[in-house]
Amino acid sequence: MHNWNDMIITKPFQRVIDVSSGDPHRAGMPPLSFARQVLAVCLYPKLLKESSFPVDVRQRAEKLLGACNGGSVGSYSASSCGIPQIQKSVAEFITKRDGGVASDPEDIIFSSGSQRTLKLVLHLLSSGQGPTQTGVLTPLPCPHTLPILLDEVGVKLVPYRLLEERGWTLELEELHRALKAARRHCEPRAIYISNPGNPTGHVQDLKTIEEVIRFAASERLVLLVEEVYQDSVFGQDKKFLSYKKVLFEMGASYSERVEMVSFHSISAGTMGECGLRGGYMEVINMDLLVKNFLTSMQGPCSPPVLPQLALEIMVNPPSPGDASYEVFTQKVETLTQNAQRACEFLNGVPGMSCQQAMGLYPCLHLPAEIIQEAKRSGLRADVLYCKKFLEEEGVCLGPGSENGHDDENYHIRLCISAPAAVLEDVLKRLQSFHLRIQDRHH
Amino acid sequence: MHNWNDMIITKPFQRVIDVSSGDPHRAGMPPLSFARQVLAVCLYPKLLKESSFPVDVRQRAEKLLGACNGGSVGSYSASSCGIPQIQKSVAEFITKRDGGVASDPEDIIFSSGSQRTLKLVLHLLSSGQGPTQTGVLTPLPCPHTLPILLDEVGVKLVPYRLLEERGWTLELEELHRALKAARRHCEPRAIYISNPGNPTGHVQDLKTIEEVIRFAASERLVLLVEEVYQDSVFGQDKKFLSYKKVLFEMGASYSERVEMVSFHSISAGTMGECGLRGGYMEVINMDLLVKNFLTSMQGPCSPPVLPQLALEIMVNPPSPGDASYEVFTQKVETLTQNAQRACEFLNGVPGMSCQQAMGLYPCLHLPAEIIQEAKRSGLRADVLYCKKFLEEEGVCLGPGSENGHDDENYHIRLCISAPAAVLEDVLKRLQSFHLRIQDRHH
Repeated sequence: MHNWNDMIITKPFQRVIDVSSGDPHRAGMPPLSFARQVLAVCLYPKLLKESSFPVDVRQRAEKLLGACNGGSVGSYSASSCGIPQIQKSVAEFITKRDGGVASDPEDIIFSSGSQRTLKLVLHLLSSGQGPTQTGVLTPLPCPHTLPILLDEVGVKLVPYRLLEERGWTLELEELHRALKAARRHCEPRAIYISNPGNPTGHVQDLKTIEEVIRFAASERLVLLVEEVYQDSVFGQDKKFLSYKKVLFEMGASYSERVEMVSFHSISAGTMGECGLRGGYMEVINMDLLVKNFLTSMQGPCSPPVLPQLALEIMVNPPSPGDASYEVFTQKVETLTQNAQRACEFLNGVPGMSCQQAMGLYPCLHLPAEIIQEAKRSGLRADVLYCKKFLEEEGVCLGPGSENGHDDENYHIRLCISAPAAVLEDVLKRLQSFHLRIQDRHH
Repeated sequence: MHNWNDMIITKPFQRVIDVSSGDPHRAGMPPLSFARQVLAVCLYPKLLKESSFPVDVRQRAEKLLGACNGGSVGSYSASSCGIPQIQKSVAEFITKRDGGVASDPEDIIFSSGSQRTLKLVLHLLSSGQGPTQTGVLTPLPCPHTLPILLDEVGVKLVPYRLLEERGWTLELEELHRALKAARRHCEPRAIYISNPGNPTGHVQDLKTIEEVIRFAASERLVLLVEEVYQDSVFGQDKKFLSYKKVLFEMGASYSERVEMVSFHSISAGTMGECGLRGGYMEVINMDLLVKNFLTSMQGPCSPPVLPQLALEIMVNPPSPGDASYEVFTQKVETLTQNAQRACEFLNGVPGMSCQQAMGLYPCLHLPAEIIQEAKRSGLRADVLYCKKFLEEEGVCLGPGSENGHDDENYHIRLCISAPAAVLEDVLKRLQSFHLRIQDRHH
């Protein structure tokens, strides 16, 4: 008999840690307990009497159950758009976030995550083939799920490069260059923006956003704005500005004309609830038929109730004075400290550099030998680097080529939403591995 | 000042009860507490230590959390198909249900409810226009959401009539008639089956199912089988037989050839969890590309975790000996008693008749005057009847015309999944209203 034990290969790690894809709970990050407690009570309302739950948890659960048909999360939502009170909550959150720029609850469409709604919008934009095929201006680097998604929908990825040497800024001339180059091969119909940038962490300033909006208006492009990391802006002098706010402050010639969809999600940021699958999009200046299609494509029935409740919690986290406020701020603080710690740490590793954000995207300066080794194995050097790191240290990082990087600048992607100790472990392993790689080839 | 109070119209009821659409929690039906307790614990695992929860609840929650990445419902499912352990659980349930006919976990595709997956499958089948437009053989009466869904997808509804006088049986000659008639106007590509029948409650026997399968095979039609009420078969001598079981017992010439999709859902039957939006389809003999499309159309990410956990609970309810078994059987008993009570009651009302099932679909014998009144108002008589009943008694029923009935046989639709007292109230109101309607016109 063959003995299976002979085949077990001893590894210098106990378990694999995956920090590649922004799935924080998988990396051991505890969920926001306020959110989980409220949802648990909504599922099993007898817990309303459970005095071990904070009072604001029970109050919130009572309020949310009151918005559900028959007071149960098991009933269909009141309309095919979702629960009207929660559409209203989201619109109020947006209005407050944007310093009073109004949001119409009817412009809020719930979804099973921003990826799914983005796919629906792209399906609507997709047409033609060859030179008439729909193109979407897409930042490089972009979210790692985007190139596959564009491909699946049959839309051409029109790359515009973000400037790493200026901290991953978006430059207007690059947009013009990209658009001009693309028009020979396809019909660009939309521009995709990720702000705060995934994976770069760059937060766009007012001037940039205004330039992009003017560009979209004059070139008649639909603005697809992914703003799922809006609550995760770290570092001084940085502030999230929504495209919606800027659009509406540019006056009616823009605010009544530019077609825009802004995507938000409970999977990202402080919530990090990937498994619940929930999000919303705010749809501006789009034809009513388009809005109806986007609503009806959710299915002939209404969207799931629990993700809507989680969304309400996301847009209304505990406030100062609430029983759960401290626990909530602790989580925000952990993320802030993680971002700071990881960024400082990685910038201190020779041959690496990055910015402070929820997702880090350090640049790798690799020895020529590893680039050649990669070429021999038919891999990109960043992919080989991640492969070796996984094998040697048990940590799964994302290679920059998944984010659309295809040139000789190599990057890795990691999400800092993990317990501080896990992150520390990942960083130390990365440092020692990185130095080892450099040493091997000197 | 205008006094708003002057405008309040006094109604002879305190609240509106909606029993029209199979949304039991909205009608006040309590959820299955075992399911809700397990899900609450999964959301907030500190409840694992809560001794007030039955031991089988905590054991099940622990098992389900073990199947989640990182032990959290907040992580993405392990694959884009869902959580592999739950695919396996569903396949085991099917194998056991079908007396050993094997089910492959890879044939199980999770969904946000059976309506959404049905829509995706219909999208795939949909093509052509005019005489080449895809047609789907559809029972009349059919589920009330189906006509709209077929229309949205651009598929032609090809009606085959169920025989009310034989208890809503499906007759082979009628299928042949319907198919022949349709072939002049469209290209029938599939046949839709609802078994146990929605809204009729009819449970098909072995002979009928074999006939349908032979018909689908010889006419090369895809079998779309909605079996969401499989756990809700009431009355003696009735037994649910799945199309899958019958297909595989008919031998390889059928089981390896007939393309079939069977739909199941957590919204129907004993679970009745409409708001969670979950279900699965088992996809038999379909091209791998079709399966991949159906999986990927859920979005580039994985399906929501909580509905998958609810599905696992549905296919593995508490067994005899489990702490929660009694509470579970109580719910099943309530439904059984409701079905029996409602059926007997309505059959005792002059001018009404129906069969025992989860959804009742009594026939209405209406006085000529109300039919004429309806004609004058441009309504069908069943719609007018439901409108008057809602206005006078505060109960929302479904008119049979929503189920595709367009002839002079009038029906109403009601779901018996409500607390016994609520159902009793509905029945008494229906009786008194019905007799009043008859009296007014005699």
